[in-house]
Amino acid sequence: MSRPCVFCSLLRDEEPATWLYRGDHASALLPLPSGRIAPGHTLVIPAEHVVGVQDASAEALQQTILLVQRVARSLADALAAPGVNVLNASGPRTGQSVDHLHFHVVPRWEGDGLDTWLNGRSRHPVADSWPDTLRLALREPGSQA
Amino acid sequence: MSRPCVFCSLLRDEEPATWLYRGDHASALLPLPSGRIAPGHTLVIPAEHVVGVQDASAEALQQTILLVQRVARSLADALAAPGVNVLNASGPRTGQSVDHLHFHVVPRWEGDGLDTWLNGRSRHPVADSWPDTLRLALREPGSQA
Repeated sequence: MSRPCVFCSLLRDEEPATWLYRGDHASALLPLPSGRIAPGHTLVIPAEHVVGVQDASAEALQQTILLVQRVARSLADALAAPGVNVLNASGPRTGQSVDHLHFHVVPRWEGDGLDTWLNGRSRHPVADSWPDTLRLALREPGSQA
Repeated sequence: MSRPCVFCSLLRDEEPATWLYRGDHASALLPLPSGRIAPGHTLVIPAEHVVGVQDASAEALQQTILLVQRVARSLADALAAPGVNVLNASGPRTGQSVDHLHFHVVPRWEGDGLDTWLNGRSRHPVADSWPDTLRLALREPGSQA
C-alpha cells in the first residue's frame, strides 16, 4: 500500500541511525547531517507508526511529547541552550519529509542566525465563517482537554 | 517579578479573546488578526501558566498536545485541511511572543504558498562531541518515554 517507513526500519535496527535515546514508547535520534539545521537538532518519534498528530493514539502522542520535553531539558543541560523550537509537519502539503510522526526539537541560542517563523501568509481561500465552523467541530465528543 | 501574562488574563476572562474551545486543562483560541498566517491558525494553551515545554507539568503538556490533536482533526473536518504544521517556541531566543506555553496549529492546503521550514542554519558554535554530551544528559533519571 505504501513505501516502507524509514523510521520504522531504523526502530527495528535494520539500518544505522544516530540514536540519542531509545525508549519503549518514544525515541530520539539525529537527523541526517544534511538535514541538521543546528547542533543538537533532534527528532523525537513514537514507536507506533502513525503519519501525523491527527492519527496518533493518545498514549503515543503523550509519550512522544514527554520525550520532546526531556530533549528540551537536556539541550539546556548539555548544550546550554536556553530555549528550543518544537516543529512538526503532519500530513499532506505540510512539508513532512518522512511519513512517520516526528517532532523536531531545535535548540536556540543568542545570535544563532535562525529565523523561526513560517514565511508568508496562506493564500488558501475559505468562507469568512470559518471560526464558527471550526468552533463547532471542536465541540464534538472525544475531548480530553 | 514579571509582566502580567496576557494568556492568563484571557483565561480569566479579563480581556476579550476569540475562543474556539475552553477546557479545564487546555484551551484553543485564535491569534490576533495581525498574527494569523492562515485561516484556521489556532493557538492551544494550557490552563497552567508555564513558559515553555521545558517547564510544563506532565499533565499540562499531555492535555495540551491532546487538544492540539483535536484541533488538527477539527481543521480536517471543518476546513478540509489535510495536514497541519505544529509550531512552538519555548524560552529565550526562540521567537516566543507570549511567555505562556502555546502551540500554533497551522492548517495547510495545496498551493497555500506557505514555506514551513526554519530559514538558514544555526551559527552557534559547540564542541564536536555534542551528540555524546546530549546522549548522556538524556540518560538521567526521570524518563517517561
